[in-house]
Amino acid sequence: MKNYLEMTKEELLALKEELDLQFEEVKGKGLSLDMSRGKPGAEQLDISMGMMDILNSSSDLKCETGVDCRNYGVLDGIPEAKRLIGEMAEVNPDEIIIYGNSSLNVMYDTVAHAYIHGVCGNTPWCKLDKNVKFLCPVPGYDRHFRITESFGIEMINIPMSPDGPDMDLVEKYVSEDPMVKGIWCVPKYSNPQGYTYSRETVARFARLKPAASDFRIYWDNAYCVHHLYDTNQDFLVEILGECAKAGNPDMVYKFCSTSKISFPGSGIACVAASPANLKDLLANMTVQTIGHDKLNQLRHVKYFKDMDGIRQHMRKHAMIIRPKFEIVLDTLDRELSGLGIGTWTNPHGGYFVSFDSLEGCAKAIVAKAKEAGVTMTGAGATYPYGKDPKDTNIRIAPTFPSAENLKKAVDIFVLCVKLVSVEKLLEK
Amino acid sequence: MKNYLEMTKEELLALKEELDLQFEEVKGKGLSLDMSRGKPGAEQLDISMGMMDILNSSSDLKCETGVDCRNYGVLDGIPEAKRLIGEMAEVNPDEIIIYGNSSLNVMYDTVAHAYIHGVCGNTPWCKLDKNVKFLCPVPGYDRHFRITESFGIEMINIPMSPDGPDMDLVEKYVSEDPMVKGIWCVPKYSNPQGYTYSRETVARFARLKPAASDFRIYWDNAYCVHHLYDTNQDFLVEILGECAKAGNPDMVYKFCSTSKISFPGSGIACVAASPANLKDLLANMTVQTIGHDKLNQLRHVKYFKDMDGIRQHMRKHAMIIRPKFEIVLDTLDRELSGLGIGTWTNPHGGYFVSFDSLEGCAKAIVAKAKEAGVTMTGAGATYPYGKDPKDTNIRIAPTFPSAENLKKAVDIFVLCVKLVSVEKLLEK
Repeated sequence: MKNYLEMTKEELLALKEELDLQFEEVKGKGLSLDMSRGKPGAEQLDISMGMMDILNSSSDLKCETGVDCRNYGVLDGIPEAKRLIGEMAEVNPDEIIIYGNSSLNVMYDTVAHAYIHGVCGNTPWCKLDKNVKFLCPVPGYDRHFRITESFGIEMINIPMSPDGPDMDLVEKYVSEDPMVKGIWCVPKYSNPQGYTYSRETVARFARLKPAASDFRIYWDNAYCVHHLYDTNQDFLVEILGECAKAGNPDMVYKFCSTSKISFPGSGIACVAASPANLKDLLANMTVQTIGHDKLNQLRHVKYFKDMDGIRQHMRKHAMIIRPKFEIVLDTLDRELSGLGIGTWTNPHGGYFVSFDSLEGCAKAIVAKAKEAGVTMTGAGATYPYGKDPKDTNIRIAPTFPSAENLKKAVDIFVLCVKLVSVEKLLEK
Repeated sequence: MKNYLEMTKEELLALKEELDLQFEEVKGKGLSLDMSRGKPGAEQLDISMGMMDILNSSSDLKCETGVDCRNYGVLDGIPEAKRLIGEMAEVNPDEIIIYGNSSLNVMYDTVAHAYIHGVCGNTPWCKLDKNVKFLCPVPGYDRHFRITESFGIEMINIPMSPDGPDMDLVEKYVSEDPMVKGIWCVPKYSNPQGYTYSRETVARFARLKPAASDFRIYWDNAYCVHHLYDTNQDFLVEILGECAKAGNPDMVYKFCSTSKISFPGSGIACVAASPANLKDLLANMTVQTIGHDKLNQLRHVKYFKDMDGIRQHMRKHAMIIRPKFEIVLDTLDRELSGLGIGTWTNPHGGYFVSFDSLEGCAKAIVAKAKEAGVTMTGAGATYPYGKDPKDTNIRIAPTFPSAENLKKAVDIFVLCVKLVSVEKLLEK
């Protein structure tokens, strides 16, 4: 196919006519397909069904310290869960707190704690005269941005590259502005690009010299074991150890969960952090709750047993979702390569492909897809305040639809990209 | 036995000598007993073991609307859980949100929401110039008081009677002071007395005319179905309906949970409130989490089926804990009646007996009991800031120890009451 940017107006008009016809045909099918959220598909949930049998009425429901998991107590998680999830999070069991089913909730609560009570004795953010600011690598995860937005925190866009956030900018903001209190990171198989922060990026994070003593890196390692391939796996330097070595032990909260390992609605989440940070969080947690669901912690430990169990389980996930990623990537390659109207990422893990259209086209593409029955993540969602300054970024989530539906959905998506791009080019 | 208050100094000295001997003998046994927390005993947890079998890998894990409970989604709870827990909370399914395992966490989050974002569009409490105040019926639940204390909320003691809080005082504070934003209530089988608010008390609550538009009643109906007897059950007027009738539909948040019905660490919790309040809470919840554990909601619904299932289940709990309450009450009656050194409540439900000693004795009694190996709830814990102004109140929690251990523990407790009382009287 010819590069659209090199087409004459007549060629573009002819192409538009052809694409319009294709679009009307597709639209007439009245499809209803969803590529919007990073949800596992039913087939993926099926591989965890053994978890429903692992505890029963004959099970010993005591944890290894003899505590009855059915009753109240154990604020920070049962020891065996701290060991298992600690291994996944690459920290010692005593560097971790186990929570309920939602790491998003843990992140919200961590920000709320800073806002209400202050981080480790610092002034609560709600009592500061000036606005707190967060750095937001973009495109990024919409739900992170919604948390900070809900606290009235000012968000500053930081461009992403395949090595991670623009560290020159990060260093400048963090060292110069004491109102910069945090940065949202999805450091491995980032949402939405699937990028993994390079060694150099992590090292520069660890060596930050924050102007604010309560600056923290909100390190959401959501996809820590979520590889698509057995080989060709990204490697991420462990941040807590790196920060400790650099003399910044308290600078990071690391979040993980089993949401996309076992059942998304019924997993267990954690925060890993320095002793000072854990003590600070626990002092508030003891007011907030008597404890999280220990039976579910026990269920996870008995089912996965150890890190090898988790790794094997993740291979099963990969076998299901790798072909879905390939459907998306093959279609994008086949249909859009060389046309000059879009670029996209080629991740080795995680849950998304990030697509960038011509400037000013993303919203129109998503609207067009919707018209044809395909729901995409809202254009702009990958930016703070839902505002993508160039209106280019679209997050593609291949996991939830069946392979058959995904094929149809991606075909419609590329058709919409072509059509909207042609319309855009004709405007000039 | 003779009333201690009528004894001569010589009689008291002789009695003290005798009690000292008894105490040393008991202390020598090196016991370790716990009457401190309102935890179900292991035998109670055993009656819910069927819950561990109710879902397995062959189960249909979709809720009645077809949503896969294993996956993300359904912020406010699956419909069948809203129906079941709604019936328990005596509200319609659309007047309720289902949460995770901890109603304490829901209460914390509700206060945090008011503090961070403001109640239904009102100024967030953290942005007010003056201190927010809460009314605290006393003695009351220590964990309520710790929540408000952690937000820097000023707590005002309101005396309790068997009919509920002193409503003259409540009305005066609520109608006159716009900084009074809430009141903590355990309206049925109150913690620690086991009192249930009278019809008149609930009616007066519903007719309050708050000076603050964001005043709310924090109605913790923790013991709504927790009767000790088949007959002789307390009745509590349903507050939401009563408030609506009185033209105050938005004035109350009602909290319930299954913590002391199924497994305390792994139950489901809820808030019931007016449509305006639910909308306000959900707007924040959607930022905070993708959803709570729906499999656990489904597990509860499949196990209990309906309200009759819950009632039958609660009868089994009552059969286990009624004899424990009787051990406590019989011992108190037998050992302390007529001595003039203590009064106590005689609850028909809930988890506690409230004991009041001579003034200035509670701390000493709890310390003495500890010395002999019996852990009680800390004296003062039933008051805001841990300060019992007269140092009289002690919360007795009969459920967790075995009957055998409970007998020993209560015997030691009454011995300590006698000993400390004699010492107090000798001081005069």
